[in-house]
Amino acid sequence: MAPSTNKLNVGILGATGTVGQRFILLLAEHPNFTIHTLGASSSSTGKTYKEAVLGRWKQSRAVPAHVADQEMKECVAKNFAQCDVVFSGLDSGPASTVEPEFRSANLRVFSNARNYRMDPLCPLVVPLVNTSHLDLIPHQRASLSPQLNQGFIVCNANCSTTGIMPPLKALMDAFGPLDKVLVSTLQAISGAGYPGLSAFDVHDNVVPYIGSEEEKIESESKKILGSINGPKTAFDEAQCTISAACNRVPVLDGHMECVSLSFQRRPPPSVEDVKRALHDFRCEAQELGCHSAPAQAITVHEEVDRPQPRLDRDHQNGSGVNVGRVRPCPVLDIKFVVLSNNVMIGAATSSVMNAEVALAKGYLS
Amino acid sequence: MAPSTNKLNVGILGATGTVGQRFILLLAEHPNFTIHTLGASSSSTGKTYKEAVLGRWKQSRAVPAHVADQEMKECVAKNFAQCDVVFSGLDSGPASTVEPEFRSANLRVFSNARNYRMDPLCPLVVPLVNTSHLDLIPHQRASLSPQLNQGFIVCNANCSTTGIMPPLKALMDAFGPLDKVLVSTLQAISGAGYPGLSAFDVHDNVVPYIGSEEEKIESESKKILGSINGPKTAFDEAQCTISAACNRVPVLDGHMECVSLSFQRRPPPSVEDVKRALHDFRCEAQELGCHSAPAQAITVHEEVDRPQPRLDRDHQNGSGVNVGRVRPCPVLDIKFVVLSNNVMIGAATSSVMNAEVALAKGYLS
Amino acid sequence: MAPSTNKLNVGILGATGTVGQRFILLLAEHPNFTIHTLGASSSSTGKTYKEAVLGRWKQSRAVPAHVADQEMKECVAKNFAQCDVVFSGLDSGPASTVEPEFRSANLRVFSNARNYRMDPLCPLVVPLVNTSHLDLIPHQRASLSPQLNQGFIVCNANCSTTGIMPPLKALMDAFGPLDKVLVSTLQAISGAGYPGLSAFDVHDNVVPYIGSEEEKIESESKKILGSINGPKTAFDEAQCTISAACNRVPVLDGHMECVSLSFQRRPPPSVEDVKRALHDFRCEAQELGCHSAPAQAITVHEEVDRPQPRLDRDHQNGSGVNVGRVRPCPVLDIKFVVLSNNVMIGAATSSVMNAEVALAKGYLS
Amino acid sequence: MAPSTNKLNVGILGATGTVGQRFILLLAEHPNFTIHTLGASSSSTGKTYKEAVLGRWKQSRAVPAHVADQEMKECVAKNFAQCDVVFSGLDSGPASTVEPEFRSANLRVFSNARNYRMDPLCPLVVPLVNTSHLDLIPHQRASLSPQLNQGFIVCNANCSTTGIMPPLKALMDAFGPLDKVLVSTLQAISGAGYPGLSAFDVHDNVVPYIGSEEEKIESESKKILGSINGPKTAFDEAQCTISAACNRVPVLDGHMECVSLSFQRRPPPSVEDVKRALHDFRCEAQELGCHSAPAQAITVHEEVDRPQPRLDRDHQNGSGVNVGRVRPCPVLDIKFVVLSNNVMIGAATSSVMNAEVALAKGYLS
Repeated sequence: MAPSTNKLNVGILGATGTVGQRFILLLAEHPNFTIHTLGASSSSTGKTYKEAVLGRWKQSRAVPAHVADQEMKECVAKNFAQCDVVFSGLDSGPASTVEPEFRSANLRVFSNARNYRMDPLCPLVVPLVNTSHLDLIPHQRASLSPQLNQGFIVCNANCSTTGIMPPLKALMDAFGPLDKVLVSTLQAISGAGYPGLSAFDVHDNVVPYIGSEEEKIESESKKILGSINGPKTAFDEAQCTISAACNRVPVLDGHMECVSLSFQRRPPPSVEDVKRALHDFRCEAQELGCHSAPAQAITVHEEVDRPQPRLDRDHQNGSGVNVGRVRPCPVLDIKFVVLSNNVMIGAATSSVMNAEVALAKGYLS
Repeated sequence: MAPSTNKLNVGILGATGTVGQRFILLLAEHPNFTIHTLGASSSSTGKTYKEAVLGRWKQSRAVPAHVADQEMKECVAKNFAQCDVVFSGLDSGPASTVEPEFRSANLRVFSNARNYRMDPLCPLVVPLVNTSHLDLIPHQRASLSPQLNQGFIVCNANCSTTGIMPPLKALMDAFGPLDKVLVSTLQAISGAGYPGLSAFDVHDNVVPYIGSEEEKIESESKKILGSINGPKTAFDEAQCTISAACNRVPVLDGHMECVSLSFQRRPPPSVEDVKRALHDFRCEAQELGCHSAPAQAITVHEEVDRPQPRLDRDHQNGSGVNVGRVRPCPVLDIKFVVLSNNVMIGAATSSVMNAEVALAKGYLS
Repeated sequence: MAPSTNKLNVGILGATGTVGQRFILLLAEHPNFTIHTLGASSSSTGKTYKEAVLGRWKQSRAVPAHVADQEMKECVAKNFAQCDVVFSGLDSGPASTVEPEFRSANLRVFSNARNYRMDPLCPLVVPLVNTSHLDLIPHQRASLSPQLNQGFIVCNANCSTTGIMPPLKALMDAFGPLDKVLVSTLQAISGAGYPGLSAFDVHDNVVPYIGSEEEKIESESKKILGSINGPKTAFDEAQCTISAACNRVPVLDGHMECVSLSFQRRPPPSVEDVKRALHDFRCEAQELGCHSAPAQAITVHEEVDRPQPRLDRDHQNGSGVNVGRVRPCPVLDIKFVVLSNNVMIGAATSSVMNAEVALAKGYLS
Repeated sequence: MAPSTNKLNVGILGATGTVGQRFILLLAEHPNFTIHTLGASSSSTGKTYKEAVLGRWKQSRAVPAHVADQEMKECVAKNFAQCDVVFSGLDSGPASTVEPEFRSANLRVFSNARNYRMDPLCPLVVPLVNTSHLDLIPHQRASLSPQLNQGFIVCNANCSTTGIMPPLKALMDAFGPLDKVLVSTLQAISGAGYPGLSAFDVHDNVVPYIGSEEEKIESESKKILGSINGPKTAFDEAQCTISAACNRVPVLDGHMECVSLSFQRRPPPSVEDVKRALHDFRCEAQELGCHSAPAQAITVHEEVDRPQPRLDRDHQNGSGVNVGRVRPCPVLDIKFVVLSNNVMIGAATSSVMNAEVALAKGYLS
């Protein structure tokens, strides 16, 4: 690698996988980060990246030229010693040992895996929503034995959780606590990774079940929408009740979610109030001018049949979320649909934006 | 047509359309009914049925031989004077004039169109649920001017309404009034008729909007789940609150619906109680031994990922409904999924089963 | 199992797989055969069939009741000693050892695997085409060491080969040798088995490559369309030249194949002659009255846009093939499309029909 | 519109349709052209573009801001008097009267409609292949009555024809005349326009017929691959024989075509020679540095299963074509697959690139 004086070196774990490939594309020309080390399973070690993804590169853009010939390394901390930041696209299996080992070696890990999401020391951050939770990093470092001066694990959320967080947060900020939230999802096949689902199972079909997905939405949401305590040593969960029903549909990318919710406030806000609050919502990543932050965190669609996955998933390169069909709910207060790009803001873009905010807030120095 | 001594003559309006084609297949070898007269738009008049559906027959079974050469008639009542029963697969446009004209001519019309569903004189019948509403037929006849001695219009419900009615009815019967019902649908493309949706719109996509569909579910359900008054002159709506969110998904046949609901009864029934009530539910069409009645009105699936449209839509030839994933709902009481075959029990099979019940109850003599 | 006095006992190898499940359905109520022994991999041994296919049964019909509780056996010959016939749905890996072991134990094996298709002792039989090749069975038995008095292996062809064989054979019978055949395929995802293809690979996509498929078509066809020599000891290949281009398309079942061909005969037959020859073609399975033989071996469609996979794959329960768009080819002589059901005549139905013919011809006694 | 000193004013006919929307996106920030006048059917006249495409804009990118508020004009020549170039995305119905009227008014029309493709005065130009045919423009102007000093019609080819032209031309240039070409297509649904195909027809299906498509490939190819005579007054057709079989598959964008061909030259070139000739092929649009010309006219893929529509259709923004699986053909000489983006190089990009070449060659002054 050519030296890059002003950029931070980054490592990518699971670089050949679905999320890893997105990391490659997002980081190939990033103003703050330079791809330095690529890690993958032992079957890829020693190959060039191009060789390692042969027949597995599933992006419509080509492998970036300067990454193609980089040599793949085993996912052990000493290979990543020169990395200022490590992005992990590992599955939960390898993540369970690799990520804590990396943290112990004083590496900063931004993880897509589920393992540490509900850990009381680890921020679970949707970058459009709760980057304030990064302030628990010092406590995480101090609580480990031995204490760390640099290393940490910050998680991003499950893709279907991520999509609904920005509108829920926007409404809490504007109108106070939510009471109840009911969400039904129509999730894309790319959410299952690669090879993921058998074509035989999802072709001309809906699968009304995704393992642990409903539980993830119901638990992760409360942590993300909650706050951190005064001394920045603990997460206080939000108190709303959440119920999820998750379905897989034959769509490539883009999770659609039907949300109905009620507020604690009586009377509840009007449809117009809700739309305005969603549209006006801004997040810290925007205020800090982060590279990957969308111009508009929540795009509110007025057309009666939008957003739609195929037409709207690439809006703002998938870095924001789309809301449409805001209308009264006869059972709760308000209902609407949310579309988010599960492979971008729902995965790789979340990690990268989290790191950008962490950088801006001084947690990477 | 060969004379059929014991069978009733039936006419089919809109015989070349999507629903009409299903009527043809259901009635071609029916023990109670004989296809006598086929009606279609003026462009088909005078053609044989085979000619009229050339390039438009979209069934995997062939046109029944004895129907293929029948001549298509204009949809005017005098052409159907010999019909004991008329099944209408007309769109709401032509239905608005044709169906009342037929009724005025003392014909019994079983309609799939939306026009008379909410009419205070017309039973809106899901055959697995509320065939008792047929008892309003005498009042309908008596209320028209001039009074009729034979003619009537009986409607079946919108396909997405139909699917969820049997489980809701089963639970009301077992546990008393429902309080709130929230339903999100994942509806098949065949529900839009032919040509219906552009492939361009639904390919690799979800459309989170179906015109008037949510309103139909919210209004029709209350009529169907309601009762008729003592003198059998009016419908009393059920009092529960219903909220629907409707989506089109790229699936050929089979509407999936995610239901969450609460009971008025406290404490609510357990998951096991709910499953048993659903499984044990029986309807009048079954008790009367109607030809099209399913052996099992509601099939309760225990596998964690069933029912699925492609695998379960043809169970019992689509005449019952499928329920799965019965589990507690953190927001309301219980949640589950329902799969129904929108072109069978959701359309043609409903009309035919309604007529079978009407026959058994003496309304066709 | 209850004894079945007049039926032959059959075993099924690979009974839980895609082809195996079709065997179960085809044989559950067969007039000549009774399912006796079910074999599967060691992970299923000892389970009931119902337990073994839990979450893997992908048929729209339920597991037949009398099969559901049968115990799964290991695929070793002694477990199948009471079977008069063994149908193998094994993949080529296990087939390579299991099938010859079964034959050595004097069992009659009808195989779907590719291993023995080109073996000079094994008939490669498309039941609508070359059941005369079964007459090599005595030579197969005599050529093995030690010689067998009952055992044999008979193969059916690859699914994409199978589809085009009946029309090619019909044209050879009517008009003499073919000169050149060019075929491009559009193959269904079920052809890849289960789990087979990743949904990610074939969704909204065409994959213009199927490993070894083109070679199979080019080699198997010549054996199938060839003859056996006078003493019934060898296969003489047909002399035509065949070129195949194979593609996977997002269709569940049904292989479409575009065929262009030329005859040695000059001038070539007319389009009408070709249609008539295809329509009039009859095979030995039909003449012998075999249970699974279709009424019409080749259905010639006159509609300009038929056959189509979704509409025509289930015609005659997938036991025949469909031809359409017969027209002149500017480059060769004639072109047309063929649609065959790859999981029925392209797999399980072929084996069963081969066994029916073998039974009728005395090779199972 | 603000005046644009150095750019040519362009008009777009059929601006709200599928091809028209692509013109808008391609021309919104074009270095040579400025969108000046937008024409559409009378139902859109007087609306802004944004209003006119409400509910019909099917692009993942938004309507360009400076186009959104432009007023739609009726498609009559006087409304386009200030346009230096007119791009027509009209269907053949309106094109039959509008396009010649525009030419008579001395407007330069680049048409996507089929009407004038085989006209002996009109160049039929695939911009990667035969821009030399533009040299017939003076003869076209001189042959009309009254003679024109500026107006002309230049057509681009049918989308399925366009895809295979660059490789065929590259091979003719390198190895002399082709003898026979056999092509089977797997065409995307966007090729049918909007609303185009019913979802019901193409879902989980292949339609082995596209009206007139095979005839278009067989006739247009010979004109495109042919030459113009010495005095530049006539087209001489190429002499090869072409046979096409066209299929619609459930893919959004991207036509895949399986090609087998033979050369007149004996012995034919090797596979390696063919690959090199395809890779090295360059066209006039590249030599002239046209804005829309791809860096690589023909991208030759070495991976065994590429190109694929979903992964490769957006390569170079769809402005080149992709070839893969170059291998010997047992029947003819060589076979390979071609993937082209039917809505880009297969439609709008062709017109725009044709105009860029015409500009560079002085035909727009």
